[in-house]
Amino acid sequence: QPRREVLFFPSQVTCTEAVLQAPGAAPGPASGCQCSLPHGESSLSRLLRALLAARSSLELCLFAFSSPQLGRAVQLLHQRGVRVRVITDCDYMALNGSQIGLLRKSGIQVRHDQDLGYMHHKFAIVDKKVLITGSLNWTTQAIQNNRENVLIMEDAEYVRLFLEEFERIWEEFDPT
Amino acid sequence: QPRREVLFFPSQVTCTEAVLQAPGAAPGPASGCQCSLPHGESSLSRLLRALLAARSSLELCLFAFSSPQLGRAVQLLHQRGVRVRVITDCDYMALNGSQIGLLRKSGIQVRHDQDLGYMHHKFAIVDKKVLITGSLNWTTQAIQNNRENVLIMEDAEYVRLFLEEFERIWEEFDPT
Ligand SMILES: [Zn+2]
Ligand SMILES: [Zn+2]
Repeated sequence: QPRREVLFFPSQVTCTEAVLQAPGAAPGPASGCQCSLPHGESSLSRLLRALLAARSSLELCLFAFSSPQLGRAVQLLHQRGVRVRVITDCDYMALNGSQIGLLRKSGIQVRHDQDLGYMHHKFAIVDKKVLITGSLNWTTQAIQNNRENVLIMEDAEYVRLFLEEFERIWEEFDPT
Repeated sequence: QPRREVLFFPSQVTCTEAVLQAPGAAPGPASGCQCSLPHGESSLSRLLRALLAARSSLELCLFAFSSPQLGRAVQLLHQRGVRVRVITDCDYMALNGSQIGLLRKSGIQVRHDQDLGYMHHKFAIVDKKVLITGSLNWTTQAIQNNRENVLIMEDAEYVRLFLEEFERIWEEFDPT
């Protein structure tokens, strides 16, 4: 049964330490986390899990990316050897709290537009197998306050079409 | 075979008169339109066609709605007796060129939020059968200049989940 799910936001604010624990780490501390936040599932924790399932590749095509939790998830994947590529919009990249600079510093490939129109997509492709797309910009403001949707679809046809779009933009934004 | 399609934007600027012709009208004038725009298909014309297929109901849940062509399509459906309901974001509604005032004047039901978070969805449900959702705000700026995606899915499960979300917000934004 291929995965087909939708997450609605705003997400309840929950502790995401257990999700963001490196795999192989003892499941003790974070699952027994004593912080004051609720420790159940939320739309954000489900989105993090869907991303952290990546084993080989992750393509990100995101208008805005400033959520620290989502930034940590992408860094974790990079550290695990997953090939991460990021396309983003230059107008947003310069804003306060953007994760893009941190991703670049850790060696992740990032390309951005330099023209008038916005690169307004908000999608991710996990292992060239699962498409994650919707209305949600990856910002804490949007996650915690906005009405948003994110589809998680294991769908070969959609993955193919979005991957083609990713590669088109990736080539177009090649700085060399 | 259930419909499953993706439209990518920016859309080529094409003449949409033929698409927006009322059905039953003689297929002469608009299909033989003499204006200077190209008359082929485009992402916008495909989106218009998907909406104009509605026969009984159309739910719209849109952060921003200022495209004159999409406004005309919704007005046409209302004139044909399709039950149209619109949810939008109050912050955008007041902006220049919004179609929302025109829709209201013609008798279409519109509800909007009044809180801090954005109503950031961009989805439509046609005849409770087809879900149209993606990154695209319904503005000419986005249609003509931005990198955007719109999924068109005949999918009973997704339609059910998005319709539930629509009804939740519709009740919450009830002004009475
Ligand atoms: Zn905790
Ligand atoms: Zn024409």
